Amino acid sequence: MIRIGIVGASGYTGAELARILCNHSEVELTVATSRQYAGKPLSQVFPSLQGRADILCEDLSVAELVDRADFFFTAVPHQTAMDIVPRLVGAGKKVVDLSADFRLHDPQVYEQWYQTHTAKDLLTTAVYGLPELHRAAIGKAQLVANPGCYPTSVLLGLAPLLKAGLVDQQTIIIDAKSGVSGAGRAAQVGSLYCEVADGFKAYKVGEHRHTPEIEQELSGLCGMPVTVSFTPHLLPMSRGILSTIYAQVSKVLPDLTTLYQDFYREEEFVRVCPAGHYPATQYVRGSNYCDIGVKFDPRTGRVIILSAIDNVVKGASGQAVQNMNLMCGFPENAGLRIVPLFP
Amino acid sequence: MIRIGIVGASGYTGAELARILCNHSEVELTVATSRQYAGKPLSQVFPSLQGRADILCEDLSVAELVDRADFFFTAVPHQTAMDIVPRLVGAGKKVVDLSADFRLHDPQVYEQWYQTHTAKDLLTTAVYGLPELHRAAIGKAQLVANPGCYPTSVLLGLAPLLKAGLVDQQTIIIDAKSGVSGAGRAAQVGSLYCEVADGFKAYKVGEHRHTPEIEQELSGLCGMPVTVSFTPHLLPMSRGILSTIYAQVSKVLPDLTTLYQDFYREEEFVRVCPAGHYPATQYVRGSNYCDIGVKFDPRTGRVIILSAIDNVVKGASGQAVQNMNLMCGFPENAGLRIVPLFP
Amino acid sequence: MIRIGIVGASGYTGAELARILCNHSEVELTVATSRQYAGKPLSQVFPSLQGRADILCEDLSVAELVDRADFFFTAVPHQTAMDIVPRLVGAGKKVVDLSADFRLHDPQVYEQWYQTHTAKDLLTTAVYGLPELHRAAIGKAQLVANPGCYPTSVLLGLAPLLKAGLVDQQTIIIDAKSGVSGAGRAAQVGSLYCEVADGFKAYKVGEHRHTPEIEQELSGLCGMPVTVSFTPHLLPMSRGILSTIYAQVSKVLPDLTTLYQDFYREEEFVRVCPAGHYPATQYVRGSNYCDIGVKFDPRTGRVIILSAIDNVVKGASGQAVQNMNLMCGFPENAGLRIVPLFP
Amino acid sequence: MIRIGIVGASGYTGAELARILCNHSEVELTVATSRQYAGKPLSQVFPSLQGRADILCEDLSVAELVDRADFFFTAVPHQTAMDIVPRLVGAGKKVVDLSADFRLHDPQVYEQWYQTHTAKDLLTTAVYGLPELHRAAIGKAQLVANPGCYPTSVLLGLAPLLKAGLVDQQTIIIDAKSGVSGAGRAAQVGSLYCEVADGFKAYKVGEHRHTPEIEQELSGLCGMPVTVSFTPHLLPMSRGILSTIYAQVSKVLPDLTTLYQDFYREEEFVRVCPAGHYPATQYVRGSNYCDIGVKFDPRTGRVIILSAIDNVVKGASGQAVQNMNLMCGFPENAGLRIVPLFP
Repeated sequence: MIRIGIVGASGYTGAELARILCNHSEVELTVATSRQYAGKPLSQVFPSLQGRADILCEDLSVAELVDRADFFFTAVPHQTAMDIVPRLVGAGKKVVDLSADFRLHDPQVYEQWYQTHTAKDLLTTAVYGLPELHRAAIGKAQLVANPGCYPTSVLLGLAPLLKAGLVDQQTIIIDAKSGVSGAGRAAQVGSLYCEVADGFKAYKVGEHRHTPEIEQELSGLCGMPVTVSFTPHLLPMSRGILSTIYAQVSKVLPDLTTLYQDFYREEEFVRVCPAGHYPATQYVRGSNYCDIGVKFDPRTGRVIILSAIDNVVKGASGQAVQNMNLMCGFPENAGLRIVPLFP
Repeated sequence: MIRIGIVGASGYTGAELARILCNHSEVELTVATSRQYAGKPLSQVFPSLQGRADILCEDLSVAELVDRADFFFTAVPHQTAMDIVPRLVGAGKKVVDLSADFRLHDPQVYEQWYQTHTAKDLLTTAVYGLPELHRAAIGKAQLVANPGCYPTSVLLGLAPLLKAGLVDQQTIIIDAKSGVSGAGRAAQVGSLYCEVADGFKAYKVGEHRHTPEIEQELSGLCGMPVTVSFTPHLLPMSRGILSTIYAQVSKVLPDLTTLYQDFYREEEFVRVCPAGHYPATQYVRGSNYCDIGVKFDPRTGRVIILSAIDNVVKGASGQAVQNMNLMCGFPENAGLRIVPLFP
Repeated sequence: MIRIGIVGASGYTGAELARILCNHSEVELTVATSRQYAGKPLSQVFPSLQGRADILCEDLSVAELVDRADFFFTAVPHQTAMDIVPRLVGAGKKVVDLSADFRLHDPQVYEQWYQTHTAKDLLTTAVYGLPELHRAAIGKAQLVANPGCYPTSVLLGLAPLLKAGLVDQQTIIIDAKSGVSGAGRAAQVGSLYCEVADGFKAYKVGEHRHTPEIEQELSGLCGMPVTVSFTPHLLPMSRGILSTIYAQVSKVLPDLTTLYQDFYREEEFVRVCPAGHYPATQYVRGSNYCDIGVKFDPRTGRVIILSAIDNVVKGASGQAVQNMNLMCGFPENAGLRIVPLFP
Repeated sequence: MIRIGIVGASGYTGAELARILCNHSEVELTVATSRQYAGKPLSQVFPSLQGRADILCEDLSVAELVDRADFFFTAVPHQTAMDIVPRLVGAGKKVVDLSADFRLHDPQVYEQWYQTHTAKDLLTTAVYGLPELHRAAIGKAQLVANPGCYPTSVLLGLAPLLKAGLVDQQTIIIDAKSGVSGAGRAAQVGSLYCEVADGFKAYKVGEHRHTPEIEQELSGLCGMPVTVSFTPHLLPMSRGILSTIYAQVSKVLPDLTTLYQDFYREEEFVRVCPAGHYPATQYVRGSNYCDIGVKFDPRTGRVIILSAIDNVVKGASGQAVQNMNLMCGFPENAGLRIVPLFP
């Protein structure tokens, strides 16, 4: 039984980690931190967890934390993470960090899109935690940078095509849509029910911070620098991301559905839709699946890829547990056999 | 490994049975019927089940069905059920029927609220499948009538008070609210997104068919005839029922929260809220829990009980599996340790 | 052309006043205050108003305000209102106050449910602004206390029955449900999309501050003290209130639909549903209508009344404009002929 | 007072025409047809219209229709429209047809995307009813083909750029998202609340019938053949379309916001967002506005245009009334000064 600590348990990704770990037989949640709710049971913050995760929230220093668990999930904002993670790593702990602080290999790129980085040395050892692309490295890592929600959907959607060199990597346009949980649990007017319900809009047009993360990994896949158009939108729903991805074909294409099915044949958490069918976020809700559909449009010479995930699971906490499983030698699907909740 | 058949697999309760049974280690889904989708995989009807329940839908006679499974869930409309169930029972199969056909003990009451009953003899042997109230009888039953969704929330909410004789049983008013999945998957204008979204209304005021079912069981609890006001409403959401129940107090009350906690101390699937806290449907979503909160209002001398369930789980398919577990000697919570999905 | 000021323009009721007044031919919005958004156009706070209400938000003292308009709507929280309103009234301005500060005639009752009242003298002159019940007095008032959203739906629903003395006034139970806009535009976790969507719950059970307001007016209608059970719930939608009201019949009833139609025959903004039909919030969305349906249940001897309004219009800003129209001698429906938006 | 007939009044666009015409002072609704609801008041089909549009639905032949009104809106499915419209036109009536039957000038293109066309001669005289682009021709037309909802948002979004020749017309990618009302009021599983709520998906990928309509009009704007990628998606909300449009820049760009503001300076129903701001469907809800925001991304050399409408108003019935106003010499905004409903 491995002892688990969640740093930042009172956000949506923290609560989701607790939900998933309830049904994970190899681990035990031994510490959960929250400054705001210190002294309250986590199940009072999230009554959904009553009887399942009644652990008290605590406000602890890193020095206190390291005695309380063997493995840590850091589910805190970027910039806060780079303060905590190095000390957990320094104490010999394994860590999956759910923030953006250790995803970009190049500190200059990080500082251009975020702010000053104060733990640059870890950027070279942290592994980008997308198991379908970096499984072996994750298994050996002490620190895994859990991918962003948008990048997860995009990278899984594009990997087969880019690896096969079938599209022009400079023509990639990503039109992505996310549920509101992606904005976290902070009390802000823009996330109020009345502001978001029955409505739809784009935000951070041409300047969302997941852009360099997507470009880094896509460049790695095709071995060439990639620049993408990436436009995020806010959906009037809680969970789910659908990315619609366009790319100009550069070679004669094989059957695309077959290509994708072959690429992901061994992957439990990627489901390729039959030809002519497309994914929907409601079919992955609450699960660790990424569903992908793909079509070639001969009128325009473009491929259109649709990729759907639950942003809180495969886009955050589920993938974090998948990474933990790899890092700890557990079955990769332990705790993650949740069937999507529909309707 | 017990072989399971779902009769009527293409409705929401059928799909939900499949979802739950995916993670039930003692059973195997061996047959699923659907007239409309015969020949298609269930996972094409509900893509959420892809890779998990790819069984083909079939259109089978009862004679064909009985060879294909040991235990049956009948998830078909009332009146259709009374046609199929007697033959499954006659073939020696155990059955949980999710329709209303075998819930009422008195055929006259049934015929007053529904239509002619053609299998009246089974009314005396069928057991009303609310485990928290009838566990022992369910364990010995061959045919269990799975309770209605509204009655489940109401009966669990009122049982402690009525058994203790603390309220005037003729003053009970039940104001209940349900998500749209309660209306099933039939294509009808009234269930269209645009008709239901962003709106709220009552329906079948003073004439909903769950009324006699509630009254039968409440009468059984207090040993006196009970007549209730029951008003169902339609919520703009997919899953969940909240029943708000009012009753005039007839005796000096003990501490209500303590009363409820004591009553349900051994019940895994009933969670009593701390005093001053009330349940919400979003905290039981996707799970088999019934959450209950209770308050005495000294200004009016009335007790107010709030009872929340997921209508598709504890109000239908989850409770059906709970009944199956009891009927088959499995652990009562097998397959049902699903943690609520929030947000 | 009367000059209008909105004090507190950046909340939902403030914005709604601006929306309605855009199409009111007798008035001009000349000043709008907001501390938080001072210096910004109201149409930047609410882009829906672009090109229609581009007035700048200002942070003004009451002394500055009084020169800028002839008629004021105060759309600020209770306790803040009692600070501003007396000075506007003292400067000879007519005022519709949308807060709770001047609704209760009895200062003791106010202080029991709210806090200390610092402008008690105005409680005797302020008129409770429900035009269907107090039209004449409103026409002559300088200060009108705009009713609460819940009370509006309840009082219009019960008035015909109580005035006719047909029900036992001590048996009234009100189960009310409101959209999220009722909670205002403050940034708080409980109003976040993810907390509220796809869910339903009661709140302030037995202790909501609209209770004494309802009781005051119901007592006035029947000439006897009335104590009610009032349970508010939060609906997963932006706009709309439905109140479901129960009362025990005390006399032989006439035809209820006819009674209601007669009572409201001259009222443009109350629509009585045909017998057997019930209102829905989606059919009054965005409009000043109150739709009412009513049924007698012979099984229980109770009347059930369903009353639906848009809480932001008839429950707040629309009714405020209706009051202004009466106070200024405009046609009562000026600016209020908005047809409900469905779907 | 011009007498108006709505053919097909029981769909969402029919009901919306009735809603808008309630507040139009120059016209009177004298006939409304519906096969399904013949004999019922329109306000029973849509209770939102009670007291405002209580006209009876009738099932009439075209011969009977022509005596009952001077001007007709045909709000019936394509293929049905081409049966009715020619006879109305033949009887000398002015018609705005809301179907797709008269939008495409080239019968071959029509038959490639739809089915056989039986009234091809009208294709040459029908005017494409987008007032901002074809105002003069609309004013003189007897038959106006009301644009599709998606094309309306796309064409208004692209017109300034294409007319100015600033982008490569072969690089246009349109990622469009629509609320569920776009699917109409037919009872079908795919439009049920539970299928659509809390979910998001693409549909008809690369094969939606609005594609040739978009291409026809874009080609007209730039004088060159245009082929576009067009991907529609289904949003979990009732009303609203947001189109996100990408195009590769082919010349040095002027300030884009200024370009758009100049282009639409005289247009009452197009609102250009300030630089750095983008439209949202919730800010145009219920209104005839098209809100547009635009940004150049120097990293990729692409322009991104965001265009939002209410699909039932500017995307259908509002635009139809705007066309009627032009055809009848009324003020273009008559009946259309509705302020968006937010929240």
